[in-house]
Amino acid sequence: MDAEIISVGTEIILGQITNTNARYLADQLRQLDIKSHWETTVDDHPSRIIEAIKQAEKRAHLIFICGGLGPTDDDVTMSSVASALDTELELDQDYWVKLQNDFAKRQVDLAPENIRQAYYLKGGEPLSNPVGLALGSMITQGHHTFVVLPGPPREFKAMVSNSLIPKLRQLTNGRTIMSANLHFVGYPESSLMDDINHLLEPYPEIIATSYVQPDETQVRLTVYDLAEEHAQKIINKASSVIIEKLGQYYFGTGENITLAGEVVQRLASHHYTISAAESLTGGLFQATLCSVPGASRVFEGGFVTYATQMKTQLLGIPSEFIEQYGVVSGEVAGAMAKMSAEKTGANIGIGFTGVAGPDTLDGHQVGEVWVGIQYDGQLIKRQLHLSQKMGREAIRRQSVQLGLLMLLHLLLHKTE
Amino acid sequence: MDAEIISVGTEIILGQITNTNARYLADQLRQLDIKSHWETTVDDHPSRIIEAIKQAEKRAHLIFICGGLGPTDDDVTMSSVASALDTELELDQDYWVKLQNDFAKRQVDLAPENIRQAYYLKGGEPLSNPVGLALGSMITQGHHTFVVLPGPPREFKAMVSNSLIPKLRQLTNGRTIMSANLHFVGYPESSLMDDINHLLEPYPEIIATSYVQPDETQVRLTVYDLAEEHAQKIINKASSVIIEKLGQYYFGTGENITLAGEVVQRLASHHYTISAAESLTGGLFQATLCSVPGASRVFEGGFVTYATQMKTQLLGIPSEFIEQYGVVSGEVAGAMAKMSAEKTGANIGIGFTGVAGPDTLDGHQVGEVWVGIQYDGQLIKRQLHLSQKMGREAIRRQSVQLGLLMLLHLLLHKTE
Repeated sequence: MDAEIISVGTEIILGQITNTNARYLADQLRQLDIKSHWETTVDDHPSRIIEAIKQAEKRAHLIFICGGLGPTDDDVTMSSVASALDTELELDQDYWVKLQNDFAKRQVDLAPENIRQAYYLKGGEPLSNPVGLALGSMITQGHHTFVVLPGPPREFKAMVSNSLIPKLRQLTNGRTIMSANLHFVGYPESSLMDDINHLLEPYPEIIATSYVQPDETQVRLTVYDLAEEHAQKIINKASSVIIEKLGQYYFGTGENITLAGEVVQRLASHHYTISAAESLTGGLFQATLCSVPGASRVFEGGFVTYATQMKTQLLGIPSEFIEQYGVVSGEVAGAMAKMSAEKTGANIGIGFTGVAGPDTLDGHQVGEVWVGIQYDGQLIKRQLHLSQKMGREAIRRQSVQLGLLMLLHLLLHKTE
Repeated sequence: MDAEIISVGTEIILGQITNTNARYLADQLRQLDIKSHWETTVDDHPSRIIEAIKQAEKRAHLIFICGGLGPTDDDVTMSSVASALDTELELDQDYWVKLQNDFAKRQVDLAPENIRQAYYLKGGEPLSNPVGLALGSMITQGHHTFVVLPGPPREFKAMVSNSLIPKLRQLTNGRTIMSANLHFVGYPESSLMDDINHLLEPYPEIIATSYVQPDETQVRLTVYDLAEEHAQKIINKASSVIIEKLGQYYFGTGENITLAGEVVQRLASHHYTISAAESLTGGLFQATLCSVPGASRVFEGGFVTYATQMKTQLLGIPSEFIEQYGVVSGEVAGAMAKMSAEKTGANIGIGFTGVAGPDTLDGHQVGEVWVGIQYDGQLIKRQLHLSQKMGREAIRRQSVQLGLLMLLHLLLHKTE
């Protein structure tokens, strides 16, 4: 069964709001394995809503029309859908009485025009709105099913998850889906997917999709319609093959994990604490660690030593040492790591120095970054080669992520 | 001239990413007074891209096709557009040579398939990509103009603002549009717009639209079709009325300004330097300052004192003092501000302490935050009352923004 989402809203067309409803619904449909190829958005205009529905009927069996169920004259969706489907609107009398009573009880005025929000498509059924006033509606005509949903994201999500999804499950009646979500950092998506698709050749049952986020790339492996145990086995086997080959970029599998969260958890399980001294990243490494609830178990404090003399003044790195190696060097990154751990009494220290741009520094190119880690008696130094084109912010963010990845791999190695 | 935006991307259709590009472009078109009624999204499939273009041709004269310009086999947009327009692809030879040289210089491999990103529509022109690899393209055929743009939001925005908008201005040639973009922090959008719409009642020529971003709310005042001088006068007058009334939330007017950028600029113009000591914000204030190019003029370094004993160990705040007032207090925020300035030799110090959650701390509620500022011989302490409902990340970000706003207002007061 193919689906199509039609969003209705002048404010979307004018760029005044981002259409998050379509994404939310599309994600729900994907999880139910309902395919979709088109999405359409039109402004609040009856003829365009009707035309969009006529178009969608040719392409899909399950059609969602979202937004424009408010009480004002601009809100023309329910009546436009009725007219496209050659049906009428029906007042949900019980609901309207209940609404009036609820408002009277709360001593809040209910405007007479709110009655418009108590109508649904005749021949279909109303969909209840757990957090707002407007009813939705669902109707089947021949091979097509039409669903009308409200626009405010809170109401939209509540109606989709409470009222709609159980009905969609009945419609699709029970395909089994098994999936795993693998997280990677520091490898371009196109190369990553080339490698993964190659590795997955022996697993034709698996569909791999990638999802690029600012700080990572997620790869979802999905298997449809196999017995649960068998599907799980295939996914586990394919995951191990991928992790074995691309382990240097991999940081975890799961739905809501972050690299910083993984590092905090590993540190905590070893009862380690960490400190940092940051130059180009300017505090972003520490802020990223602290974004993890419970970071205080592993992080007590650290330094931002943006200017060269602060590396001397706050950390006690001799200025001759910095002059000898240059402030953008593995030696200085290492000294920053070492001294931040020493000054705070942490088990581990990490130091970042480099050039975020826009200008070069002391003859070093934008994107040249050094990470130093003081860990378990060792001083590890690594140069990151980041592209100048990424821009200042992405260079700083990527430096933080790659520093976290180095830490995670050290901590994992420790475990094995 | 009517426009239509076609977004191409399986990851949008699958609900894996939110389509922020369409909103950004729609907002730009609105500012140029280019009307639009439809938006379409299709997955990465040639026949659907072609069908979407054929549909749009019937409804619009200016058609944007966005996304799918990567180097992989999934990226079929440019060739599909060429086929819909009955033209071919042309290699931008100079660009491809330049790309290869740039990569060679950085000793990074450029994959052979990246050559796909150096093609544009024959008969049209390439659009340069200031932050990525893929060229865009623009071509006019009869009454229609087609524009092909890349999918990654950073590249998309850069190409739209740098390469596309100047060309669109030529196309639309000559409606006069005058606008001002006012930036606010710390006041809910709905209250802000209620106040502003009320203040704008005497100015019916002005259309006010708001745009909520994670760290601020932008309000655009626009006047159409008035003589430039007159339009400017009305906008200036309305702006002053708004700023007078809502000045405590206002931080600037302009297209590409940020609160941190304004603070850095003011500090620099006074030849001030600033340091910080951060507890709940964990380095985010300093990282936000350092996100401004040229921050090194005003910021040399500072401290993250997440744990209580680090406030003693790194800053030298006596532990008895912290015990007396409690770690979540104006006094401790003030001492952090004072000591961070003292330890680094900065003119100004700022300290953040409070509860980001999810758990309460020492009997203080989530959302209780104190900011201290050591400035010009004074020690200023202010409590921020943030809503627990915002969640940990938003509490930390909002604390940073409100600290920056306090600083800006102190610095502006200094000037007057």
